[in-house]
Amino acid sequence: MTEQAKMQASTAVIIRNEAFLEEAERLKPLLNETIARPRRLVQIEADSAAVHGYRCNPVADAAELEARSFGKGDSFILDFGDHRVGYMSFDVRTVGSPPDAPLKLKLTFGEMPVEVAVPFDTYDGWISSAWLQEETIFIDVMPHRVELPRRYSFRYVKVEIMATSQKYKVSFHDVGCRAVTSADSGKVAPLHHADPVLEQLDRISIRTLADCMQDVFEDGPKRDRRLWLGDLRLQALANYETFNQNDLVKRCLYLFAGVPDEQGRVSANLFIQPSVIADDTYLFDYSLFFTASLYDYFAATNDRQTLRELWPTAFRQVQLALEKVDETGIVRDDESWWSFIDWQDRLNKQAPSQGVLLYTLKRAVHLAEAVGEEGTAALLSDKLNELAAATMRELWDPERRFFVSGSDRQISWAGQVWMALAEILPDADNRDLLLRLQAESPEVGMMTPYMMHHFVEALLIAGCKEEAIAQMKAYWGAMAQDGADTFWELYDPNNKSFSPYGSPLINSYCHAWSCTPTYLIRRYGL
Amino acid sequence: MTEQAKMQASTAVIIRNEAFLEEAERLKPLLNETIARPRRLVQIEADSAAVHGYRCNPVADAAELEARSFGKGDSFILDFGDHRVGYMSFDVRTVGSPPDAPLKLKLTFGEMPVEVAVPFDTYDGWISSAWLQEETIFIDVMPHRVELPRRYSFRYVKVEIMATSQKYKVSFHDVGCRAVTSADSGKVAPLHHADPVLEQLDRISIRTLADCMQDVFEDGPKRDRRLWLGDLRLQALANYETFNQNDLVKRCLYLFAGVPDEQGRVSANLFIQPSVIADDTYLFDYSLFFTASLYDYFAATNDRQTLRELWPTAFRQVQLALEKVDETGIVRDDESWWSFIDWQDRLNKQAPSQGVLLYTLKRAVHLAEAVGEEGTAALLSDKLNELAAATMRELWDPERRFFVSGSDRQISWAGQVWMALAEILPDADNRDLLLRLQAESPEVGMMTPYMMHHFVEALLIAGCKEEAIAQMKAYWGAMAQDGADTFWELYDPNNKSFSPYGSPLINSYCHAWSCTPTYLIRRYGL
Repeated sequence: MTEQAKMQASTAVIIRNEAFLEEAERLKPLLNETIARPRRLVQIEADSAAVHGYRCNPVADAAELEARSFGKGDSFILDFGDHRVGYMSFDVRTVGSPPDAPLKLKLTFGEMPVEVAVPFDTYDGWISSAWLQEETIFIDVMPHRVELPRRYSFRYVKVEIMATSQKYKVSFHDVGCRAVTSADSGKVAPLHHADPVLEQLDRISIRTLADCMQDVFEDGPKRDRRLWLGDLRLQALANYETFNQNDLVKRCLYLFAGVPDEQGRVSANLFIQPSVIADDTYLFDYSLFFTASLYDYFAATNDRQTLRELWPTAFRQVQLALEKVDETGIVRDDESWWSFIDWQDRLNKQAPSQGVLLYTLKRAVHLAEAVGEEGTAALLSDKLNELAAATMRELWDPERRFFVSGSDRQISWAGQVWMALAEILPDADNRDLLLRLQAESPEVGMMTPYMMHHFVEALLIAGCKEEAIAQMKAYWGAMAQDGADTFWELYDPNNKSFSPYGSPLINSYCHAWSCTPTYLIRRYGL
Repeated sequence: MTEQAKMQASTAVIIRNEAFLEEAERLKPLLNETIARPRRLVQIEADSAAVHGYRCNPVADAAELEARSFGKGDSFILDFGDHRVGYMSFDVRTVGSPPDAPLKLKLTFGEMPVEVAVPFDTYDGWISSAWLQEETIFIDVMPHRVELPRRYSFRYVKVEIMATSQKYKVSFHDVGCRAVTSADSGKVAPLHHADPVLEQLDRISIRTLADCMQDVFEDGPKRDRRLWLGDLRLQALANYETFNQNDLVKRCLYLFAGVPDEQGRVSANLFIQPSVIADDTYLFDYSLFFTASLYDYFAATNDRQTLRELWPTAFRQVQLALEKVDETGIVRDDESWWSFIDWQDRLNKQAPSQGVLLYTLKRAVHLAEAVGEEGTAALLSDKLNELAAATMRELWDPERRFFVSGSDRQISWAGQVWMALAEILPDADNRDLLLRLQAESPEVGMMTPYMMHHFVEALLIAGCKEEAIAQMKAYWGAMAQDGADTFWELYDPNNKSFSPYGSPLINSYCHAWSCTPTYLIRRYGL
């Protein structure tokens, strides 16, 4: 599968449900604004022991900035001390003669030191370089208050003075970031945990979630700044344990339900500006997560009216997924970009997708019962049993004692994890499957915190609490030790510069699907 | 003299005359706005026969732009068909999937083809690269109306699509330039001249002047966008023959008189934004041009009240200039950046500056009489005679029959021209001087249209009408043949890429001091 194929557009016709979209608009949150200030002037140094090879060294308190003046070719880096999402502003004044030429500045925003260390023009990956956060600005009249209109996601900002004139230099004052989030930190019950690592993971998770909570649940405030169903499901789970701002979940569900295609299929992600637009990417697993997310929402809120309104959309996703099931009771494998599961190029998606379908069917049965559609519930329950039996018959390899996937009978981590989450094996067997998975460690592994979440949750539902905690510490704990202020989109402890996009410069370092330790810790009482 | 020395700041204390500044504010013109549209899509080709080595070839009507779509790495160049000063705007729409990443565009504005042909990062001259007209912009949400907030001076605009994504391209619509000027073209009497070249020079002059008429007379709308006294004097002369918008001259005179230093000296130039600020550059000749400009203004308007209010400032410039005269009656030579005269590094400024002083003294006598200060007039007249005699005694070389300058007794074009304009020789001798100058062509020549103006006017007051017309055609006519839509700041027919700043990229191609052919043609009835 080429990346181009992954990105191939479909030509869906969107059927707008204006009532749903109006409800979503009504639920649009106000953003809370706070002014964040830089803490330090720093230098970035090459350090082969540091993540991406760059370390950040403090050189002065940020307050010292105002006394300094800068001419052509000078630069400095400010460290805001923590991850911020917001709008930067500062005063620029001149030192010396009246400014007889415009000022040219280049600003580079980085969530990580590498972003302010490595020039962006070295980036040659396959997704758009326009995600790299930079601005080149000209200022004709000074003194001037610069209020950058775009939102950035950053901890570090590098300011390069590209041109002044021979007659003047510049100084910078009142640098601030109007940080924005729809999360209300006051609503989070503090976690005082005996284990300081778990307490730390909880804190970083909440920070990650908060910075992704804007007027929708964004996947990442740096990139893609967009509402993805796969991220939404996990954000919502973390939210129920922390901010409990359930109207934001509700809003997002109404948005997805508001712009299905002509088959009733919900898109994998939505654009919110300039108006609500369904992306032309449809994914088997993500569409089913609408149903799973509605199940979680109802479980958290008991909001029966929303359930009633959105149930037809949720049921439709299951129906459409079932159309992909062949006569043997297994979802048809496919060479196209049909199911996400994980950023793992070698992964065959059949078994994990079958797992997602079983996982969702189980929840759909409950939802059908909750809306009083007993007949539908019974049909779905029969289908669940039928597919579970088919799964055991077709995909379970009794000799290797793993689930296999695709014509090559691939044994992947993702395949076992999703079958464990689907709970089609007896509890003890489920537990054995996961421990065997850890012991034998098949080659086609997990690439993202998103997939890692599912593994840890599978361990927890299988009763492997100690293993789950150990895994969380080994993964998110290592990320924290590597300097994560918020949890990263991608993290491979053995290849810390891994990027599915071609460069760690373009990775997101505050990413919704990585925020689940708070959910796992709090929900499972770790 | 190093460029650094030229740019050295003085530390003048400014004494603000608020009444004068209020009068200037009251006279602030409204800007007329018109929407200019691109005419053609063009390509720039290398051509050693063209100015700067680049020629512009039309490839399509601009209307064809809207049907085209552009992805990463694509670019196009629009030709607006004539010089424009204003604010560009356009719609950008997406083609293909919904835009799943920001759009990154680079815009480059050029008055000349070279500016959209040669990358700006090759510029390494000594004045600020921030004058080079470019923008790099990111657009997060599309469709989007881009309204660039900065004013540009251009005919060509290159649009480079730096990044889209693999899923979308972009198209451009409703491209326009909100062109601004305070000039009212309806006020100009048409010139129907038997000589089509003079008619053309008149037209281009007027266009140049109009594009420099903003809320003050700017020297160049691309660079420096500022009110310089040397430019103002020539713009005002051209204005009296064309737009006759004399309140704008008056406003500029009040501005200069409003911010003298503690000695009463007017600055060589003013910044208007964010408030009226006198630059810390003071030039012997430019300060005197305040007096000469007031003389011209009074001659054109007979506005006696303004004369009365501004006469003390005008007289003060003469007094200060006279302080620079030594015991022999000649202005002291100096190694510093004390008098401009021309962009000619080898030029000794003594003789031409003496000429400027004599030229101004003669006009100051008239002004003193006009305000009824007979005693002052008599004193100035005596001083004029004394200095004229000293000039003949000290600077006139009877053997070489030229005026000499400085301790090396330099014979320059500028020295002769300013002495001719000072009219200290009998008319016939003045004429002979100029013809001898042309015939012998001393090595230290003229470098700018500004200096060329003074030479042509000197020819005209000496009665050498044919020579003046021939010179105008050889210079401004050649510029027109080389493609000038508006007259250029710099033009050396023998070295068309000449720049005193290090690169033709940074030269201004619509420059006030080059707009005088209309004045010379109309005032002298050519």
